[in-house]
Amino acid sequence: MIRKLPLAKVYQLIEPGPVVLLTTAHKGRQNLMTLSWHMMVEFEPPMIACVVSSANHSFKALRASSECVIAIPAVCLARKVVAAGNCTGRETDKFPRVGLTPVPAERVSAPLIAECAANLECRVVDTTLVRSFNIFVLEVLVAWRDTAQRSAKTIHHHGYGKFTVDGDIINLRSRMP
Amino acid sequence: MIRKLPLAKVYQLIEPGPVVLLTTAHKGRQNLMTLSWHMMVEFEPPMIACVVSSANHSFKALRASSECVIAIPAVCLARKVVAAGNCTGRETDKFPRVGLTPVPAERVSAPLIAECAANLECRVVDTTLVRSFNIFVLEVLVAWRDTAQRSAKTIHHHGYGKFTVDGDIINLRSRMP
Repeated sequence: MIRKLPLAKVYQLIEPGPVVLLTTAHKGRQNLMTLSWHMMVEFEPPMIACVVSSANHSFKALRASSECVIAIPAVCLARKVVAAGNCTGRETDKFPRVGLTPVPAERVSAPLIAECAANLECRVVDTTLVRSFNIFVLEVLVAWRDTAQRSAKTIHHHGYGKFTVDGDIINLRSRMP
Repeated sequence: MIRKLPLAKVYQLIEPGPVVLLTTAHKGRQNLMTLSWHMMVEFEPPMIACVVSSANHSFKALRASSECVIAIPAVCLARKVVAAGNCTGRETDKFPRVGLTPVPAERVSAPLIAECAANLECRVVDTTLVRSFNIFVLEVLVAWRDTAQRSAKTIHHHGYGKFTVDGDIINLRSRMP
């Protein structure tokens, strides 16, 4: 079941550094790309910074629409995540090609991805560092979580298709949120 | 053995999103803090963006010295990493308190951490978004790797002291660096 996640909990999804998918919509065309260069910037409202290179086809759509969705895939989607990274949306519709399902979002034009464990609807709030570093700052407007994938293991990219999968969980007494 | 790591490989350490330690030196005082809000910005020369809140004691030292070291601890240091996050350097010298060893760096005043699997000597190259988002952009000048910890498992923070440790490794054919 897909449920809304309180915005105050969004950082718990992004802070561990998983590979994510970023979707956009522009002039009636949807697109997606894989992304590992992202970080939390603020707890609430949740803000996320990410690097989307001007060499990526998604760059133009992100720039023009000022909206995107960050979708978090579990390890079972690893092959599709790599497939999404290995082709460009310039000529093809990547959703059917890769085998992922776009679903309308609530507040942005970019689609959610049905198969992902979580989806974050975002709007671009700062583009100051786009020209120099391709850094976009996003605010998360709505967060969705698939309750059936609550303990989903995510993947972390080490370069050239080598990923680590989430392993053991350790709990230590920390005062850090 | 501690060896220099080619700068072109630095992203492979940061992209997976591990918890890191950030050290600074200012007015003869060294300090360290834990940090999970960081991302790669450029491959080479390697650039890293990170969020250091003005509420952190390290903020002032980072601002004033424009230098830091990002040290990557393996899971065996998890308790020390949490201890570093649970106290402030305002009154105490955190290195002896936490049980970590500062070592002089080559090009920056901030110290390396002897026990860590890797250490990245950095200088601040952009502070445009410090006032609005506490985002610093760093350039990595020198990278060090402990060859004895080459297959070190890192930890990833999910909030309130819950960490996942690197688990299985999967290799998929990716054209992405």
